[in-house]
Amino acid sequence: MSFLDQISEPTLLLNETIARANIRRMAEKANWQNVRLRPHFKTHQSWQVGEWFREEGITDITVSSVKMAQYFAKHGWQDITIAFPLNRRQLPQIAELAQQITLNLTVTSADDVAFLREHLKVPVNIWVKADTGYGRTGIRTEDTAVLDTVLQELAQMPQHTFKGFLAHAGHSYKARGVEAIAAVHQQTLEKMRALKEHYVAAWPHLQLSIGDTPCCSAMEDFSGMDEIRPGNFVFYDLTQNQIGSCQLEDIAVAMACPVVALHPDRNEVILYGGSVHFSKDMLPLPDGRTIFGLVVPLTENGWGVPLPGTAVLSLSQEHGVVRTTPELFSQFGIGSLVGVLPVHSCLTADLMKGYLTLQGERLEHLSGVNA
Amino acid sequence: MSFLDQISEPTLLLNETIARANIRRMAEKANWQNVRLRPHFKTHQSWQVGEWFREEGITDITVSSVKMAQYFAKHGWQDITIAFPLNRRQLPQIAELAQQITLNLTVTSADDVAFLREHLKVPVNIWVKADTGYGRTGIRTEDTAVLDTVLQELAQMPQHTFKGFLAHAGHSYKARGVEAIAAVHQQTLEKMRALKEHYVAAWPHLQLSIGDTPCCSAMEDFSGMDEIRPGNFVFYDLTQNQIGSCQLEDIAVAMACPVVALHPDRNEVILYGGSVHFSKDMLPLPDGRTIFGLVVPLTENGWGVPLPGTAVLSLSQEHGVVRTTPELFSQFGIGSLVGVLPVHSCLTADLMKGYLTLQGERLEHLSGVNA
Repeated sequence: MSFLDQISEPTLLLNETIARANIRRMAEKANWQNVRLRPHFKTHQSWQVGEWFREEGITDITVSSVKMAQYFAKHGWQDITIAFPLNRRQLPQIAELAQQITLNLTVTSADDVAFLREHLKVPVNIWVKADTGYGRTGIRTEDTAVLDTVLQELAQMPQHTFKGFLAHAGHSYKARGVEAIAAVHQQTLEKMRALKEHYVAAWPHLQLSIGDTPCCSAMEDFSGMDEIRPGNFVFYDLTQNQIGSCQLEDIAVAMACPVVALHPDRNEVILYGGSVHFSKDMLPLPDGRTIFGLVVPLTENGWGVPLPGTAVLSLSQEHGVVRTTPELFSQFGIGSLVGVLPVHSCLTADLMKGYLTLQGERLEHLSGVNA
Repeated sequence: MSFLDQISEPTLLLNETIARANIRRMAEKANWQNVRLRPHFKTHQSWQVGEWFREEGITDITVSSVKMAQYFAKHGWQDITIAFPLNRRQLPQIAELAQQITLNLTVTSADDVAFLREHLKVPVNIWVKADTGYGRTGIRTEDTAVLDTVLQELAQMPQHTFKGFLAHAGHSYKARGVEAIAAVHQQTLEKMRALKEHYVAAWPHLQLSIGDTPCCSAMEDFSGMDEIRPGNFVFYDLTQNQIGSCQLEDIAVAMACPVVALHPDRNEVILYGGSVHFSKDMLPLPDGRTIFGLVVPLTENGWGVPLPGTAVLSLSQEHGVVRTTPELFSQFGIGSLVGVLPVHSCLTADLMKGYLTLQGERLEHLSGVNA
């Protein structure tokens, strides 16, 4: 029986071979460049996929919530960074985790440090979130006055260990093409190195951690960095392909959606698969249109290349509308399955709450696990 | 202890008083207008919220998936319409459901009817999906040649019962203001009545079903219709407010999000609450900006009116960025909670997988229930 026969509802297919190749490529690059790979697990959120990383020698990981840290700690991960500003309301859970594993927290202010000194007795490692140009959160690397006050607080904190500066160059997601990615990456490297130069005399063990999938995928030089934390690269998606982080063949997940209605007069195909499955993240195309996915044929062995002139043009809660060409329209039949490469694999995986491998195995996603 | 003390992560608050008032208002209007209210349960997807409808005399409901139908059948609903094109791959589940309850299916083609005649032995009721101008799916009401073939198939189907035509005027979501909603509504009423006139001689018991929250909220006249199926009105949201379906005070849900970082230099506040909590649905404002939510103060009794000049301007996976005014900035403190009125309550509820009432009670959402 093919894995396709199992499918009656929108289902997220995972090609293990592609995902493992993506993991291996990043692990080999990190080894070669002599930088620690601490992958972000927010994209897959699956203990089974985590094991594929372990097989490539990964021991330290990144997550973006306390809940994710609890989940992966339960599955044997002993060194976890929560790369998200400290959420003080989860202090009890943080304290409990810190007793079980090496826990690394992220702070964005001197006040955060004072809070941890006063309220968290169990030792943790502390990273200071640095803003290298993304402008979302963290302290701008130029704001040395602010950074000084944070580091002064850190110096007066006997129970916890200051590890270094952590940045996420999320503005690389606005880049298109290798030159644009390189510009973001250079800026990040320079700003982070300058930080280290400024503070290394006082803090000789200070480390630098960066990480976003575009820079980590497309760049080779991480000189001066101690750690990289990309996440999306395990699956990639159409957004990463448009940025220039990956080829379409590197995308490791595709949705399988039943066809439920046909509109030959307008070459439109209605899928069971909507915004509660894909997410509402969209991809603006160079021609001004926006799409929610590219359509691929499904086979016993996975999926093929995107059908020309064919895309998911709109989504409502449970419906997806595909427009195709007159030539390809006859390939769609009611009751058959259609593959869709997602725009943003992190959000699609979160909504789908699990995976089906091409071998017919169901893999877990944290969002499908009851608390 | 206040319900606020329970909250350490992004949490969807539900004001039961407002939701019950929304339900009662729609039930009273339907009664008065002598039309059956068959509410769409895809917005709340909660058996507990379903009970509030039952207390207003509702017995028949609408859902948009077989899974939702199974869930509400399990919770005692005996007459359910799946207002989504027939998904042939779920035939076994459909057959099982049809043995338990009065099941109403939606078809979009003569081929669907032939499929049901051949493959589904257990009797069901059948609605033909009519397109009154939305253009998503269904048969255009003008395409009487196509409709004729569907009704010919229906006439040769001994075990199932043809109920009538079902439409969703989803283009009302593009309307802004009562005149624009009225134009969509008039068009829908006229097209549906014309259908009935055309077919009533052959099918004297033929019924008409329409339903979308803007038209059902803002309009009073449903002459000729047998049934309305609005769904979102139970909670409403910022989109419905902008369309003109509701007042801001009618919105029955708000997110509660911890504040995790402050950026006084740009009047920005970082929330724990991102696209995996809110969804990526955005609201375009008349001034050209887009927002992901409006910020409201939280109190022991619920939430207040939106803070002026303050909105969620961007979302990443777990972060929300609020921009406020210099005057209001000091109201935000790290570790405190902020309320956010959602842009699209259906998607936010689906992502949040459950509710917290102002009385501190946790209510279920189907997406949080393991299969």
